[in-house]
Amino acid sequence: MDTKALEKTALSVRALAMDAIQKANSGHPGVVLGAAELGAILYGEILRHDPAKPDWADRDRFILSAGHGSMFLYSLLYLSGYKGMTMDAIKSFRQVGSPAAGHPEYDAARGIEMTTGPLGQGLATSVGFAIAESMLAARFNTADRKIVDHYTYVLAGDGCFQEGVSSEACSLAGHLGLGKLIVYYDSNKITIDGATGLAFTEDVAKRYEAYGWQVLSGSMYDFEEIARLTNQAKAETQKPSLIILTSIIGKGAPTKANSAGIHGSPLGEEEVAAAKKALGIPGDFYVAPEAEIYFKNKQEEWKKAREAWQNEFDAWAKENPGKKQEWDAFYSGKAVPVKLPVYQAGEKIATRTAGNKALDAIAAANLNLVGGSADLKSPNAVGLSNTTAFQASNRTGRYIHFGIREFGMAAIVNGISLHGGLRSFCATFMVFSDYLRPALRLSALMKQPVIYVLTHDSIFVGEDGPTHQPVEHLASLRAIPNVRVFRPADAEECAEAWAMAMERTDGPVVLALSRQNLEVFAKDDPDWRNTIRTGAYVAKKTAAPDAVIIATGSEVALALEAAALSGKKVQVVSMVSRELFESQPKALRDSIVPSGVRVISCEAGVRQGWEAWAKPGDIFSIDRFGESGPAPKVAEHLGFTAKALSELISR
Amino acid sequence: MDTKALEKTALSVRALAMDAIQKANSGHPGVVLGAAELGAILYGEILRHDPAKPDWADRDRFILSAGHGSMFLYSLLYLSGYKGMTMDAIKSFRQVGSPAAGHPEYDAARGIEMTTGPLGQGLATSVGFAIAESMLAARFNTADRKIVDHYTYVLAGDGCFQEGVSSEACSLAGHLGLGKLIVYYDSNKITIDGATGLAFTEDVAKRYEAYGWQVLSGSMYDFEEIARLTNQAKAETQKPSLIILTSIIGKGAPTKANSAGIHGSPLGEEEVAAAKKALGIPGDFYVAPEAEIYFKNKQEEWKKAREAWQNEFDAWAKENPGKKQEWDAFYSGKAVPVKLPVYQAGEKIATRTAGNKALDAIAAANLNLVGGSADLKSPNAVGLSNTTAFQASNRTGRYIHFGIREFGMAAIVNGISLHGGLRSFCATFMVFSDYLRPALRLSALMKQPVIYVLTHDSIFVGEDGPTHQPVEHLASLRAIPNVRVFRPADAEECAEAWAMAMERTDGPVVLALSRQNLEVFAKDDPDWRNTIRTGAYVAKKTAAPDAVIIATGSEVALALEAAALSGKKVQVVSMVSRELFESQPKALRDSIVPSGVRVISCEAGVRQGWEAWAKPGDIFSIDRFGESGPAPKVAEHLGFTAKALSELISR
Repeated sequence: MDTKALEKTALSVRALAMDAIQKANSGHPGVVLGAAELGAILYGEILRHDPAKPDWADRDRFILSAGHGSMFLYSLLYLSGYKGMTMDAIKSFRQVGSPAAGHPEYDAARGIEMTTGPLGQGLATSVGFAIAESMLAARFNTADRKIVDHYTYVLAGDGCFQEGVSSEACSLAGHLGLGKLIVYYDSNKITIDGATGLAFTEDVAKRYEAYGWQVLSGSMYDFEEIARLTNQAKAETQKPSLIILTSIIGKGAPTKANSAGIHGSPLGEEEVAAAKKALGIPGDFYVAPEAEIYFKNKQEEWKKAREAWQNEFDAWAKENPGKKQEWDAFYSGKAVPVKLPVYQAGEKIATRTAGNKALDAIAAANLNLVGGSADLKSPNAVGLSNTTAFQASNRTGRYIHFGIREFGMAAIVNGISLHGGLRSFCATFMVFSDYLRPALRLSALMKQPVIYVLTHDSIFVGEDGPTHQPVEHLASLRAIPNVRVFRPADAEECAEAWAMAMERTDGPVVLALSRQNLEVFAKDDPDWRNTIRTGAYVAKKTAAPDAVIIATGSEVALALEAAALSGKKVQVVSMVSRELFESQPKALRDSIVPSGVRVISCEAGVRQGWEAWAKPGDIFSIDRFGESGPAPKVAEHLGFTAKALSELISR
Repeated sequence: MDTKALEKTALSVRALAMDAIQKANSGHPGVVLGAAELGAILYGEILRHDPAKPDWADRDRFILSAGHGSMFLYSLLYLSGYKGMTMDAIKSFRQVGSPAAGHPEYDAARGIEMTTGPLGQGLATSVGFAIAESMLAARFNTADRKIVDHYTYVLAGDGCFQEGVSSEACSLAGHLGLGKLIVYYDSNKITIDGATGLAFTEDVAKRYEAYGWQVLSGSMYDFEEIARLTNQAKAETQKPSLIILTSIIGKGAPTKANSAGIHGSPLGEEEVAAAKKALGIPGDFYVAPEAEIYFKNKQEEWKKAREAWQNEFDAWAKENPGKKQEWDAFYSGKAVPVKLPVYQAGEKIATRTAGNKALDAIAAANLNLVGGSADLKSPNAVGLSNTTAFQASNRTGRYIHFGIREFGMAAIVNGISLHGGLRSFCATFMVFSDYLRPALRLSALMKQPVIYVLTHDSIFVGEDGPTHQPVEHLASLRAIPNVRVFRPADAEECAEAWAMAMERTDGPVVLALSRQNLEVFAKDDPDWRNTIRTGAYVAKKTAAPDAVIIATGSEVALALEAAALSGKKVQVVSMVSRELFESQPKALRDSIVPSGVRVISCEAGVRQGWEAWAKPGDIFSIDRFGESGPAPKVAEHLGFTAKALSELISR
């Protein structure tokens, strides 16, 4: 290990970070300056990667959970030779269009494994990366050849450890014995408000031991020690490791180091100049020649290592053509279409139950689909019949028991999806989508095709009452850009919704499913299985209708009943995905919801957004919290019945 | 301690729960049957309460964090003599309108201290109760007389301990040394999916020790032991205590005890009959005479204890008239109106900064207002200039450093508000309102006037990029019933918004505040300080306008600029609270937004909900994630500028 070169690398990281942040007049120097030594040894010695091939399937993953320290990542990507991170990019740090964005934005081709910034989520998501590695290793490695064999490294700070989402995910990581997850804790004892002692005096090491982790500690500024601790972490194959590195925030800034002020503001011209003088940095955006040479040599080494892996992979492929075929399918990003379950009109079945049948059929053909529920396997109906549970003792299982940890679960399925090779889903009650919402937002932002199965999707949950009855959730889920919400109306639609969810490749899907039984109904559109892919279709066709009811999910049945009761000429549209349908051309929309005709919307939730379709008086909605009681009684109490809707139609 | 009577009480709890759940054919018997012994000793011996006066200010608080076990609470409230929980109520368990709702719904008059069911939140919120007690004790107690001196007890289960929100809040509780918080862990090792060993094998005791708690353990079925452990918990005044009680889920059910099946489903007629036979329960909705007699005697004791406190209180009031006056003000639930900061048109100041001035003025006059931020005291601008930080060593401080724990923070401020005597606020970046959303939902459901200060309220955050720029959040916050969102347009409006927030008594308020400076503008409505209380007023009046622009927050300035640029006759309305304005009578709405005139909406967020006001083409919105860059460049990149709006006006 060339510690001299590593020192010069750390120096260059500090130089680039100070200048980039100063030039942008915005950014977070604290963690970058404080952890530059770890960065140097990580990118130089620890990570098994090849900047010339950032998408190498068996590369080690690195997650910068302390995402505000984005210049840590950018400077090291640049120094180690990732073509996607140029000096120009660094000089345009935090400018519109720069790959060096304010916080790291997922772009695997540039070596950015995930979007970070919302604290705690990098650490939690890394658990998903480690799960994915262990699942794929179990599936594809042979006695002779380990083609999946890499580590997931994380740099996390005080914020990450305070956030509950990391508690959830790391408790599960300990339970699952994810030995190839290695987390460095940049412990600088400073947060935005000041000393961590203001609010955070727990014993983090003891807590992680309680989770079943190996906990090690040392200094951020001793390369030999970091190397030794990392080897110790790798040697422990049955437990994830936490390496606590004592550090100084903003190290190198002569007057501002070790103060809260350096966390999130540029140093200022004067301090930058003084730091450069003290550190011996001769110019702007300085890269030490020793660091340049060091990485140039490394690039050769990395290339060789990667080619050795490639040879191994090719040999494995030759010896195991079946596995190779499966590998290609896994990494294609494309779902295998399946024959979906078939139903007869009149059958009564909850969409959650129909969802399970669809999921099971899809999972049988798509062996890379993995996931589970936050302790609601049976209520959410997401059990997989042809697999076992993923556990420390069983890496081939595809069902994950996440425990009662919704947010941790969603962060983890993001990680599984980001890793590559696998598709992931997770499940909870729709009302508890609030608990996982920040991770769903990241799924959307990172364009990950994660499937969220959210059952018990309305006041028709009944007895469990308002804490368990979503009313605002459909609206609030639709509000997130790039989230697609599907709310199927019966078992047939549910099967198609699952198929559509698998077809999506550029963002998450929410499947909003009923607890209660719904009757399968005959569809007037003979081509409905295609039309539904526009987001809506005509369930009940009427020539020259007096009104069109747009309903979703369980309310389609209610609309059909109300239409019959009303005695009026009513067309009923099932709008399985409002936001998808709204993105269609006008002519197509008009072919389903004819313009000029009165529109009534019908959904057991708040009206927000339905104003685009219906006049205020024609929005049949529930604009309040629910009530505890048997579902039909609750609906009656809230005036949300077929009778009330038929009266509205006749009004 | 009459253990015989306690046994009969536990028997009666089991009898009532089995029958009520069977009659409703819905409910969660597992925890009720499993923890009946704790319930008996808790309500009989441990709690200092008086069922005849549920609103006794100095009563001990009990939070059923495992809210699904609602019959635990209802049966004990009934047995101990709370008039609000009758046998009729229990017989109508889980029926519409019954006080015995599916999950406990906050109703202090009936002895229900908070709404529980969403797991983890009861435990997290209890930390707020304990903080409130210690703050009020520090403020009101004298050397001679302790008029505030009570405990907060919690019953929590495996789910509560797995949820991250409890990790956050309990870490803080340890830091704060809340010695009067005592948590019983009903450790039955079973969750819905089966054995906790499927996903939860961490060492909870060790984790809580790491948080700085005292951890004790014993058996759920040994009254003497529970009493001894509780005394040990009370004796430790510097640390919160966790008492782990090993239990058997569904104890008493002959075949279903100790199985996942009993968690959330009625026992079934047969099992109920067999249980009754085995336990010696002679009839339906049985209450043992020994339990009845026991509680009758207890009621006398409780009355005496409460009267003794009242005498103490009266003596204290006489000796400390100033404190008594303050006490009355604290418990009145009414805010003291204050003289708000004054600004001049043309001043440039961010609404977060103006918010701090208003908050400081209000806090100086309302000494019962307490709160803080999730480690963003200065960025959120919520420092209080005339107080100190609340810490273990300083119970008189009113500023709370919550650490980087948004969800825990919001749960805690709910607890502070629910306790009585105090008003509470909390703060974070608006984008991270997603992290605390489940607690905000409970604020709304429980009608708590908690104030959420959410700064950095749009893409005008700039460089920090899409992870830090809210776009869907205004819509999604407005979607929650009973949440009132105020988005003031300048410093003057901000002061009024803070005043309006303090005036609210029946639900939470969100203050959406800008990071960037905004210019104070002259208002055409001379009575705007009153009119704004309708939710909107005319900022720029125009006779016979070509168009009305409805804008919110920082976009009012943009609308004024665009109106001037357009050369058209444009009226500009500042709609500080859309949902409030939408609740006004039509005539009032028409006086501000005249009907028949083209309306253009302007808000830097998704369009959802604005369809009620403007045609699709006239909604000036941002329907995608933001970008990292200087705010004006981001706005330009997204086409969200005064120029673009003026072109829309002219179209």
